Amino acid sequence: MSDYSQILLDKDGPVATITLNRPEKMNAYTRIMMDEMIHALDDTDADDNIRAVIFTGAGDRAFCAGADLTPDDGARPFSSETEVSDLSDEIVRDGGGRITLRMFQSTKPLISACNGVAVGVGATMQLPMDIRLASDNARYGFVFARRGIVPEACSSWFLPRLVGPQQALEWCMTGRIFDAQEAKDGGLVRSIHAQGELMDVARGLALEIAENTSAVSVAMTRAMLWRLPSEDHPMKAHRVDSRSIYKLSRGKDALEGVQSFLEKRPAEFPGKVTQDMPEFYPWWEEPGYE
Amino acid sequence: MSDYSQILLDKDGPVATITLNRPEKMNAYTRIMMDEMIHALDDTDADDNIRAVIFTGAGDRAFCAGADLTPDDGARPFSSETEVSDLSDEIVRDGGGRITLRMFQSTKPLISACNGVAVGVGATMQLPMDIRLASDNARYGFVFARRGIVPEACSSWFLPRLVGPQQALEWCMTGRIFDAQEAKDGGLVRSIHAQGELMDVARGLALEIAENTSAVSVAMTRAMLWRLPSEDHPMKAHRVDSRSIYKLSRGKDALEGVQSFLEKRPAEFPGKVTQDMPEFYPWWEEPGYE
Amino acid sequence: MSDYSQILLDKDGPVATITLNRPEKMNAYTRIMMDEMIHALDDTDADDNIRAVIFTGAGDRAFCAGADLTPDDGARPFSSETEVSDLSDEIVRDGGGRITLRMFQSTKPLISACNGVAVGVGATMQLPMDIRLASDNARYGFVFARRGIVPEACSSWFLPRLVGPQQALEWCMTGRIFDAQEAKDGGLVRSIHAQGELMDVARGLALEIAENTSAVSVAMTRAMLWRLPSEDHPMKAHRVDSRSIYKLSRGKDALEGVQSFLEKRPAEFPGKVTQDMPEFYPWWEEPGYE
Repeated sequence: MSDYSQILLDKDGPVATITLNRPEKMNAYTRIMMDEMIHALDDTDADDNIRAVIFTGAGDRAFCAGADLTPDDGARPFSSETEVSDLSDEIVRDGGGRITLRMFQSTKPLISACNGVAVGVGATMQLPMDIRLASDNARYGFVFARRGIVPEACSSWFLPRLVGPQQALEWCMTGRIFDAQEAKDGGLVRSIHAQGELMDVARGLALEIAENTSAVSVAMTRAMLWRLPSEDHPMKAHRVDSRSIYKLSRGKDALEGVQSFLEKRPAEFPGKVTQDMPEFYPWWEEPGYE
Repeated sequence: MSDYSQILLDKDGPVATITLNRPEKMNAYTRIMMDEMIHALDDTDADDNIRAVIFTGAGDRAFCAGADLTPDDGARPFSSETEVSDLSDEIVRDGGGRITLRMFQSTKPLISACNGVAVGVGATMQLPMDIRLASDNARYGFVFARRGIVPEACSSWFLPRLVGPQQALEWCMTGRIFDAQEAKDGGLVRSIHAQGELMDVARGLALEIAENTSAVSVAMTRAMLWRLPSEDHPMKAHRVDSRSIYKLSRGKDALEGVQSFLEKRPAEFPGKVTQDMPEFYPWWEEPGYE
Repeated sequence: MSDYSQILLDKDGPVATITLNRPEKMNAYTRIMMDEMIHALDDTDADDNIRAVIFTGAGDRAFCAGADLTPDDGARPFSSETEVSDLSDEIVRDGGGRITLRMFQSTKPLISACNGVAVGVGATMQLPMDIRLASDNARYGFVFARRGIVPEACSSWFLPRLVGPQQALEWCMTGRIFDAQEAKDGGLVRSIHAQGELMDVARGLALEIAENTSAVSVAMTRAMLWRLPSEDHPMKAHRVDSRSIYKLSRGKDALEGVQSFLEKRPAEFPGKVTQDMPEFYPWWEEPGYE
């Protein structure tokens, strides 16, 4: 499956780039694209050489124009064809949520380089990423209420956390298309760039992480910052960070981190995510669909 | 009860306006006003022609100057006269919370057109609304600590979500009065307008929702975006949005949404909130006072 | 223990100032400093004359340069020397979290006057404070991933709440040092001031609280605004604020608050935090380390 048909997976040093690659369809989302994106994230998580993952769209018009509303096989655009009586059946699961939940579990930082139109699942799939960059021609739309459906891909969980309830509600209740500046002002994207510079900025951020930090530290940090704010008391974070500091401070990355700091030289962290995560990781039980 | 004494309920096409109507008392809040506001929200929820509700204050000075501190009947301003031994008695319930909890359950979008002074419950009753607009003479105050009481109307739950802990704490611990610009900078209000244009902007937003979206989609979206971020994992949102997409994508609004999109024409959604919500709605059990 | 060796505790009217006082070490954090800070907070909580607490660093270079990486006694910098088999042992507890959890329980408002470098625990110890001020030479760094460890002091719980997930993740995954302007733009600090004016502004805020508000109201407000947003429904806040309004509205501070308002004179609130909190306070059970 390394020969993908609807995405590209490129690796350049410590940075992987996943390109949604149906430019003739404005990179519209399909079940095949979903499967390939999940496969690519399994790959980047398993590859200790990869320290960050950039997502972008092929062509200069679109990041992803949403779910393919006219799939070649005539399938229903937003849901499976199969009818079930039990809504807890796996077949009911939304295809947007399958990819955003997989992103949520990534051990590598995810950076969106949004190079054009991003509507529907093209917008919501960017929410579990860690940093969102936009080209100056990017446009976003949480258009679900204009199609008679609802915000999917777990976006009701992610979007209010990222931009606050007031902005999230306005975007989702009007369903309007908005430009990169409104996305930046609302807190959705970190920064706006000329299209020709977008990938360079994304890569610069990825390298800033790769060249300065411990991979194990970053994987732990990603899990902690996305998960622990849901807890009802900072003591819950104290339990995780105390165990982490105790274990990691006895490890090779902390030794290198302190020594390189005292010697005022760049650190070379030897730790690997596939081997060196503390044994209590993951400290949570991942919930299933039900 | 359609002849209200302390509010006005006006319906103009798909937009209802609820006006706090005691201008000689700067629209100060009373138990009668509370009862009438709850009744009006029952009305707008039951009326499928209404797609959004605007709240404003009568006159050009005040939205609502807080609880009436000198009620004509001499009642205690902030709490019932009756003494009880059990604090879980219904009579203990704060009158601000009764209206904000009712707003929280609204199936229609709520928009605040804050046309002047909004202090105490006049400020906190705006927090569960979806979008807050201010006139340029609006002033806000979470003044409770200056009266020897505490932030009420569930504002300790709403305000930090809307503006973050730092801003919420400063406003509530100083109890200071602040102007529309500080409210906008802090994230409380969406935008500031000349008083003569305030209602037009509010109505424009209401119509943008009414003219472009499915009422069922918007009611679902409102419930999802206010409630699901409290869950401890995005999987909880995935369960709700998967069921919603599955059910709604087989419904008449999604059919119209996709067809109108492909035909590049405005959609005319037939669905009604009183009849067409998915059968699993509400997916939660509403907690009671205890 | 009132003769502190690594901090100063100064009281001037209603305002206490706690100064981290190892200027020759850029006020680097040690176990002794931690014990003294906790002791000082016990003092300010027990002293009804104190209405707010300011934290700053000695000298004009640093607020706190993080954990002392080269302690005189040769101890491991980030964790105890003692080895344990059970990670729920108290000895595993992170020293940063011990101070931030104590701050979380403070009944008095906490204001940070960050007068220079604040990295590692020097940055994270400011997160549970209510208001963060920066001098124009302040610099911050959540540098943990550059040392091979993780964000500590419960910062994974506090930081995303204060600045949102996107900004929190970027700061913690790059570990970069950033200046006061970036801290302000990201929502970490409230405002930036010339170093010579920093303490005056902090003191002005402390006095604004002290001179205008009820101490009991502020202690209740602080607990409510930090704790109740974690609840899954605004009804949980309604239960607490209804009880609070019911009890406090029958108390001496509410009487003075209303009377002074109607008489248009400054209030003189007689209530004391050590004696006059409602009997249902605390309404929660504080979790322990486990």
